[in-house]
Amino acid sequence: MILTVTLNAAVDTTYRLDRVAPHASNRVTAVTERAGGKGVNVARVLAALGHDTVATGFAGGATGHHLRADLAEAGLREEFVPIGGTTRRTVTVVEEAAGDATVYLEPGPVIGADEWSRFTDRYRRLLRTAEAVVLSGSLPVGVPTDAYGSLVALAGEAGVPAVLDATGPALLAGLAAGPALVKPNAAELAATAGPVTPLAGARTLRAAGARAVAVSLGPGGLLLSSPEGDWRARPPEQVRGNPTGAGDSAVAALTAGLVAGTPWPERLADAVALSAATVLAPLAGSFDPADHRRLLPRVTVRRVHPAPPSSAQGEPCPS
Amino acid sequence: MILTVTLNAAVDTTYRLDRVAPHASNRVTAVTERAGGKGVNVARVLAALGHDTVATGFAGGATGHHLRADLAEAGLREEFVPIGGTTRRTVTVVEEAAGDATVYLEPGPVIGADEWSRFTDRYRRLLRTAEAVVLSGSLPVGVPTDAYGSLVALAGEAGVPAVLDATGPALLAGLAAGPALVKPNAAELAATAGPVTPLAGARTLRAAGARAVAVSLGPGGLLLSSPEGDWRARPPEQVRGNPTGAGDSAVAALTAGLVAGTPWPERLADAVALSAATVLAPLAGSFDPADHRRLLPRVTVRRVHPAPPSSAQGEPCPS
Repeated sequence: MILTVTLNAAVDTTYRLDRVAPHASNRVTAVTERAGGKGVNVARVLAALGHDTVATGFAGGATGHHLRADLAEAGLREEFVPIGGTTRRTVTVVEEAAGDATVYLEPGPVIGADEWSRFTDRYRRLLRTAEAVVLSGSLPVGVPTDAYGSLVALAGEAGVPAVLDATGPALLAGLAAGPALVKPNAAELAATAGPVTPLAGARTLRAAGARAVAVSLGPGGLLLSSPEGDWRARPPEQVRGNPTGAGDSAVAALTAGLVAGTPWPERLADAVALSAATVLAPLAGSFDPADHRRLLPRVTVRRVHPAPPSSAQGEPCPS
Repeated sequence: MILTVTLNAAVDTTYRLDRVAPHASNRVTAVTERAGGKGVNVARVLAALGHDTVATGFAGGATGHHLRADLAEAGLREEFVPIGGTTRRTVTVVEEAAGDATVYLEPGPVIGADEWSRFTDRYRRLLRTAEAVVLSGSLPVGVPTDAYGSLVALAGEAGVPAVLDATGPALLAGLAAGPALVKPNAAELAATAGPVTPLAGARTLRAAGARAVAVSLGPGGLLLSSPEGDWRARPPEQVRGNPTGAGDSAVAALTAGLVAGTPWPERLADAVALSAATVLAPLAGSFDPADHRRLLPRVTVRRVHPAPPSSAQGEPCPS
């Protein structure tokens, strides 16, 4: 099975209304709620692709209860560790008239030292039957700042490849332990590796310990740097929709490819097609398989020549 | 005991942050959550005044679980009827820099015919030991539109006086069954009785069946019309703070006075003082007893002369 870790999981609530009247009472016309957080989205997508998955992390309070109930209802296996605090909620207010959304992120619970210890015990046990582990998202307060370093190292000891999707200090702390793959987006990469080209930034992260680095370039697709070579994958068309969770779908496809041992170009094409299909779906963590199938054969993947810092990156090779 | 009915109860969530960035991600700095809805606030205030209370209504889903747990934690007796739907949530986003708030109200669950029937059975049983019943707030979808008519009539059959705090068609449907008291605010009264003076509007509602009508005039206090006479009660000072729940505190005081059989001027003074003390407190349903005690002796209550439609209303009698 593939294990996904979401240390700061959430219940994602979406409010829809025509237009927000600031500093007044607003009647919401539609409410949707579901278990969220990047690792939970990855688990949903992997399960939809037919993979056996287990989602873990922390869950507490009424929201934690809701999170677990929602995963159970979706048929997703979960092994969340109970905590004394309360799982956070995110509220996204979608204004239909403006076609735009305002997001409110709760700070999330504080994790106690004993809770972190119970989590690492559970994690060690789950690694025994895992083919790969995906570590996603921000760290809740109270968890050690080098949490991803420890979790990647424990995976290494268990012989399980780790995929890390994090930013800033949490990402940096995970690199030295040698994750199989990290997946920053361009802005996150620049915040970590400095104002260089995506390919140069990816190589910096590899030098810091990551075996491979996939940089998501939003509508521009993915750039990959690995010991096997560097590739750029581009979607066949500019898709319009909800980009939330597109990165999580790319992580799911890349992890599925890692477990299956498919060549990088295939993995990247699948990641870009699945990402684009997710943008077309209304909710993070979901996609229409018909979109995935339609887009997949039309993704272009080309090898990238190493280029001097001043030239354009990610251009196709001359044919 | 005093029974409070909240058919569309809620979990009230408050988000605090410095300033909202519209159409962007906002990190909330503080989150508070508690059981809410007008009848729940009334029960909290009555309990704080030392009255034995039972809160009822509908509760379902994770939010319903949270609602009941919060009432239990506050030491409030509750007899909420379980439903298949999910109790609604309200989210109030307070911008500290602007000193203002934007409120989002979820639509709430749909009540099934069998659930309404289970509620009326429970209500009938609870009436047996009630000295008074308070019916507050909006009706959830699925409940009969004349719900308050039936509930006031059932209270009448059980010999229990009913206090009704509702608006629009829900209020109108309750009048003919003869509630002991209704408490619209000036805007709600105008929406029901037409564009007349508050005293004329109050008399219209009495003619439609209410025994007494208390009109809340916001910072201007209360106007009462009853078979015993008409009174106007004014707070001693303009209080600044959070007006949410001020009307619920007035209802609590008027119901406590009804049960105790205190004369109208005393009831009204208490209602105005408790309302003002609630404005000074940060949360609906709470007040500082010291504010209540300090304000109470300074509320002015005067009899109101019936006046022709063209003259000012609510002026004190010539002394």
